[in-house]
Formats: sequence, structure tokens, C-alpha cells
Amino acid sequence: MRVIDAAFCFDGRSPGGPRRLAWDAQGVVVPAGAGPVSGDVPTASWVLPGIANLHSHAFQRAMAGLAEAAGSDEDSFWTWRETMYRFAGRFSPDTVRAVATQLYVEMLEAGFTSVCEFHYLHHAPDGRPYAPATAMADALFEAAETAGLRITLLPVLYQRGGFDGRALSSRQARFGHGTEAFLRFHEALCAHRSPMRQVGIAFHSLRAVDTAVIREVLAARGDATGPLHVHIAEQPAEVEDCLAAHGQRPVERLVAEVGIDARWTLVHATHLSPVETAAIAASGATVALCPTTEANLGDGLFPLREFVAAGGRYGVGSDSHVSVSPVEELRWLEYGQRLAEGRRTRATLVPGSTAEAMLRACAASAAASTGLRVGTLAEGQGADWLVLDAQAPALSGAIDADVLDRFVFAGNRPLVREAWVAGRRVVAEGRHRLGEAAAERYAAALRALRA
Amino acid sequence: MRVIDAAFCFDGRSPGGPRRLAWDAQGVVVPAGAGPVSGDVPTASWVLPGIANLHSHAFQRAMAGLAEAAGSDEDSFWTWRETMYRFAGRFSPDTVRAVATQLYVEMLEAGFTSVCEFHYLHHAPDGRPYAPATAMADALFEAAETAGLRITLLPVLYQRGGFDGRALSSRQARFGHGTEAFLRFHEALCAHRSPMRQVGIAFHSLRAVDTAVIREVLAARGDATGPLHVHIAEQPAEVEDCLAAHGQRPVERLVAEVGIDARWTLVHATHLSPVETAAIAASGATVALCPTTEANLGDGLFPLREFVAAGGRYGVGSDSHVSVSPVEELRWLEYGQRLAEGRRTRATLVPGSTAEAMLRACAASAAASTGLRVGTLAEGQGADWLVLDAQAPALSGAIDADVLDRFVFAGNRPLVREAWVAGRRVVAEGRHRLGEAAAERYAAALRALRA
Repeated sequence: MRVIDAAFCFDGRSPGGPRRLAWDAQGVVVPAGAGPVSGDVPTASWVLPGIANLHSHAFQRAMAGLAEAAGSDEDSFWTWRETMYRFAGRFSPDTVRAVATQLYVEMLEAGFTSVCEFHYLHHAPDGRPYAPATAMADALFEAAETAGLRITLLPVLYQRGGFDGRALSSRQARFGHGTEAFLRFHEALCAHRSPMRQVGIAFHSLRAVDTAVIREVLAARGDATGPLHVHIAEQPAEVEDCLAAHGQRPVERLVAEVGIDARWTLVHATHLSPVETAAIAASGATVALCPTTEANLGDGLFPLREFVAAGGRYGVGSDSHVSVSPVEELRWLEYGQRLAEGRRTRATLVPGSTAEAMLRACAASAAASTGLRVGTLAEGQGADWLVLDAQAPALSGAIDADVLDRFVFAGNRPLVREAWVAGRRVVAEGRHRLGEAAAERYAAALRALRA
Repeated sequence: MRVIDAAFCFDGRSPGGPRRLAWDAQGVVVPAGAGPVSGDVPTASWVLPGIANLHSHAFQRAMAGLAEAAGSDEDSFWTWRETMYRFAGRFSPDTVRAVATQLYVEMLEAGFTSVCEFHYLHHAPDGRPYAPATAMADALFEAAETAGLRITLLPVLYQRGGFDGRALSSRQARFGHGTEAFLRFHEALCAHRSPMRQVGIAFHSLRAVDTAVIREVLAARGDATGPLHVHIAEQPAEVEDCLAAHGQRPVERLVAEVGIDARWTLVHATHLSPVETAAIAASGATVALCPTTEANLGDGLFPLREFVAAGGRYGVGSDSHVSVSPVEELRWLEYGQRLAEGRRTRATLVPGSTAEAMLRACAASAAASTGLRVGTLAEGQGADWLVLDAQAPALSGAIDADVLDRFVFAGNRPLVREAWVAGRRVVAEGRHRLGEAAAERYAAALRALRA
């Protein structure tokens, strides 16, 4: 058993205060026991649980900043998607591995200690499977292992080009599976499950997968599905198309035709009716909010306050990775609500720290959304935590009551000094143990992708 | 004469490309001349002009993250202002100097090379003048000199508590001047003018200063006013109060009763009628947008696209300093527009880099708004520039066409490797030459302020 004494430990549930944090050889939090332990106990200042990144398309990290040039006055999510498809067509398992490794290093340096990888870049550019068929997924597993990040791989089922049932375009050929092939693919991936690796299922969207197929997949995999994720109601056009095709809004349709529960994570869920907002909250499902990507793409603002008032569960994801920071996601999740309402402190319904309320929400949703033992520092959970930089001016003179608000709402420099995953320190003095090696392989991959 | 060869130099006007940048002993950009110079010429990779910070209340930097705890469901700009007033009451010249020095170090590390200090913390807490009366302003000048930042000091005229003419509250006692006293105060400050120090005039708001007094001050100071700044139309309540008192909206009233021109900077100008938006654009005045503070306070979104389409001039400011970064200001200025419109690339009306369009706007407004020779790297302007970190993964494989978009829209780590002001390098390897000294004095000041 190893221990540290934290002057302030916010465990994701109870308010922060002094705590002796103990973990075993498997990297699991255990009771610290009473009284002193033999030898010196290392001390830490500000400790909080590592944050789960609930939505990632790793390859898109290499596109950050490359899709910001104006094409026309009609630039939108849909023109961005065309750029993304062209870019996606260039990746191989080697370039995915290099880009994902750098991305996962950046996640750990920023405070994310686990990631849900919403993975649809399955096949060769012409649509033929790699040998092995899991080559791209394997590259993501290897990247996470190299970086020391927990990963929930979510192979994406992507079958059609729209609600009208049209076939995938040639640019979408890499993404597709028949239902039977997908079930075999998922079964093969499940062999990789471990405390560091979870496997779930992602349905790309109701646009791309019929609800009858979703039911078929759920029935076929039974208790073996793992966490279930779906993109939903990100753009008004998706809502309009679903209404036109089925007379139902996307969330309304998913609830009615499939049913959702705590196994489910709805990604974005930006455009909701009040009935849909209440239905998600009542189901116990998690909403994965990606404020920096949703702003970059002009998606819109999620009705956070109504959802929280209804008892809804949420976390954050960095999605397209124009930003890789739980701080920017949480800060701008709250700021978007303030701009929409002309009020402050929107994410909490009770007096007290806004940041603590948001970090509690992330902690409470992490285990169900990732399928991993993460989110809080409760006994039996993974020993994944962050040590904030007590020397940073943004935390100068911080006290227990304000340190979490300063972490989320003050300044621009990364404030994570250490990141620990499964009881191992992977970030020290703000930098990942891999140093420059990941960045050098990333640079080489970018040269190959742009050649 | 000193020179560097930049592989890419965006001078604020023409597109970036290779350039030999030359400056003289006074820190002014001069013609590089033809042919090689004797000796080796140092080289830089990505160079752009230092960015002017058009709006700062330095003392508020010490509050960052301290006003994010929920009090009630009615938390708003106005409850925040009460917290700010309590905090403002604690400052002395020594604590203002220490806080401003750290803030100005952070500005330079983030890419701001000049600041407009909207200064209203004039007197002792009980309202009695310091001896000398300029003690607080002197502390700000000293902080800027210590950090190596150019400063435009804007002494604020603040005379009443509202449009109804009520007197200042006891919490506002530090801010007030009679008109004659203010004219003497401004005259005394003008003696400090130099290439590194400009002095202008700020009228706090139409709420706090009657337009007849603004006319009186402008007439009395004539050609000696320097740049003119005013807070305007930040909150709907201010617009409503102005309409109730005068039957005019604030910008409408300022234009009709005082008149505005290129000497003027309107701070925030968030809540505008289409006629007001067009009037500001036609006047040649600059709008100082502070997106991170305006989001933190729930102010609302400026009609950027309409304003740009009308030929309006704008720049950015960090205002309350919850964030100290031109990147976060520009990124979220653009993102706010995307969220409001459901479209992308909003800040530019022509094909090409969104970031370049925004940085051009900042460059074009800097000289008029600061009254300093800053903003572009044209001959005769101050040799104030930034060198981006070519080794940063966010710039990995960057090319001329995308480097500015990556600077503004990719990642979270500061990308400024060097900052130069008046031809002197004040930031190297991302860190200010003062090192930890400013942070230590800042920490001591915070302890004093919270004691």
C-alpha cells in the first residue's frame, strides 16, 4: 500500500479537506487506516480526481486550426464535415497511433485521465477491412497504453448516409459495417477488456443507424455491450430530417423506439424540447457535452440549467480537440449559459462553488459513461488523481473554498502539476513522462498526412 | 540598427511571408535596406505584431476565481459588482503596484505588448486624495515600466451613482472627482507622456458622467485629451435606465450629445440597435470587446458581423482578467458569433484565415485606441512583436496559410515564445525576464489583501 497526505482532497463527492489517500499495488484506492504509517508520508497540496473525457475522435486532433479559413458565407458544420472527411481519408494505423499518442499525452497534462474514443475510422480508405480488422482500434489501444491513459473504445456502427436510408458515400466507406460483421468486430474487441481498457458500443447517430438495428445489436450482445454512446441532436438539420422521416425528434425517437438508461451516453443533445430534456434526466443516461467543439462548429447551447434542475447527469468531452482541456470545456459550458441567460453561476442550483458543482457532475457520470472504475476517489475506485500547481499565480493564496473555482475560472496556464493514473504518476511538473518523444512522432505523422 | 530575418512575418497589414525586420536604438521599426548586413543575422520563425490590450482594470486580476461561488439564483453583473466594490476598497498603491506588475508580466507572456488601463481607483478608501494625488496612477506606471509593457493610462471621471444624478455611494468614494479637480489631475498625468506611456481620458459611463460634463472636459483639454474611452451599453439595465432618463439609448445619446470620432474607444457596446451599430462603424471609433469578461458577467454578445460589414473597427481587452490572453479573447469572440448564428468563420467577410482577419482588426485599431505607435510593424511604428513557438505541437507542420488560425484556434498552451517591446526582448522561452520575482510580490500582496 502507498499513501500520500493531501492538504486538500476533493474526492468528487464530499467537500475538500485534508485526507490521507491510499492505494494498493493494483492502483485501486483502499482505506488509509488509522494512525501514522511507518516512514515519511509524501504530501500534496490540492488534489482532485482525474477527469473523464467522455467524447473523442482522436484523429481530428491533427486538424486543429486547419478548418478555420472562410470558404463562403455559408460555412457551417456541414462544410466542416466535408473537410474532415477529406482529412480522415488519409489516415493509416501508424498515423492514427502517432496522433492519438500525442493527443493522449496532452489530455493527461490537461487533467483528463480517461477517454471515451468514439471510433469510426475502421477500414482502409477504399472500405476494405485491414488485416487484422481491428488494426485501427489496436493503434488507439496502443496509444493509450503508451501514454498511460485509461481508454473506453467505442467502435462506431455507421450504416447509411441519412434518415432516407441512402448508402454511405465513398468518403464514408471507411466507417461502415454490416450488422453481423459489426457484432463479430465488437466481440473481438471485447477480448481486450482490462481495468485500463473498456469496450462499449457507439451508434454514430439515428441518421446513420436505424433504431431497429440498434435494438438488434443490443439484443445480440446482451450483457456484453459495455457503455452505449450515440451522437444526437447536434444540429437543427438533424432534428428536422428526423421529424420529416419519422415525425419524431431524435431524442424523442431514441427514447420511444429503443429506450435509454444509465448505460447510455448521449453526445451533444444540443437541440432538445423540454420533454426531451426531462426524459434524458429521468432515464439516468449521461449527456456528454463538448462546449469547445460545439462552439467551433456553431452547434448551439445545451439547456444545462433545466437539465440539472431535472436531476440530469453530464460530463464533458474534447471531441474534435480544437481544445484539449477540461478547464476550457467547463469554463465555457458555464459561460455559454451565462451569455444565454444574462445571469451568473448557472451550473449550480445551490449556494457555493460553481466549479465544484460541475466537477461533482463529471465525477458522478464518469463510471457509467466510461464503464471504468473512475471518477471519484472512493474506496475501490481507480487511483487516478490530479495535483494542482500550488505555486501558480492563479492559485496564489487559494483557500479550500475557492481553489476549485480558481482552477476552472482563473487564468490560462495549465494548472495541473501532476497526473496519476492507477496509482502511477504519468505527469510531473506539468509535463508527461514521455517528454518530446510523442511530439516528434506526431510531427512526423503530420508531415506524412500533409504530403 | 538591429535586424532579424523572419521566415514568416505577419506585419498586421500585408499577408505573412519572409521579411527582414529592422529597428533603431529608439525601438522604432526602420527600413531594413537592401542586401545583407555585416555579421550573422538572427532568424525567427513565426513573427506577428504585439497585440494591444484595449481594456484593463488591473486590480481586478487579484479577484480572478473569487467571484464564482453562487449566492442566489439572481447572481448577475450587479451582484458581482458589489463583490468587486468590497474588494476594491482594500487596495493601496503598494498592492496595486504588486498586482499590476504580475498582471503585466502575464500579459506579455500571453502576447499583449501594450495596455489601456481604465483607472478609477484614485483615492484613499474614504475618498480623500493620496499625497501625491497621482499615487495610484504612479503605481500603475511603475508596474508597466518594471514589466516592460507600454501603457495608456486612462484616468476615469466618475461623478454620480446613476442617470438620476444620485451621489456616489460610500463604496464609490475612491472613484470620484469634481470636474475642475479632474482637469488638474489629467494635466498632472500628461507630464508622464513618452513613447512608452500615453495618457488619455476615460468617462466611466453615461450612468456616471453627464454628457454636458463630457463636453466640458473635452473643451477644456482641447488637443491634450489623448485617447477617449467609455464603458457603454454593457448591460440591458443600463440601456433601460438611459431610455427612462433621457428617451435615448446610451450609444444613441453619446453620438447625439457629444459626438464620437476616431479618438474614441467604446468599451463593450454589447447592446446596440442596428442604427447604433452603423453609427459607431461610420464614426471611425473603436469598439473594445472583452469576450471572456463579457461571458463571465453574462453581459451578452456584440453584433460583430453586422459591425464588420459596416466597416467598424475593433480590438480586444482582458478587462477583469479572469483570462489574460488575446487567444482566448479572439477565439471566443468568434465562437460567440458562431453559437449565435449556427454558422462558422463569422469574423471575416472574405475567403481566408479567420484569425488573420481578427488580428488585422486588432492591428488596425491599436494606434488610435492606445495613442501609441503600436499595432503594426510598419516603418515608424514601435518594434513590438511576438515570436511564436515553432516547436509547439499545436504549430507542428504549420504553413503560412494556417499558422495564424492555429495560433488562435488550436490547443490551450501559450504559444508565444518571445515578446519584444520597443526592440527589447522581455519574454524568452515563454517566460518573462522577471522570472518568479513578480509572482512572489503578487503572492505577498494577496496575503495582505485577504488578511
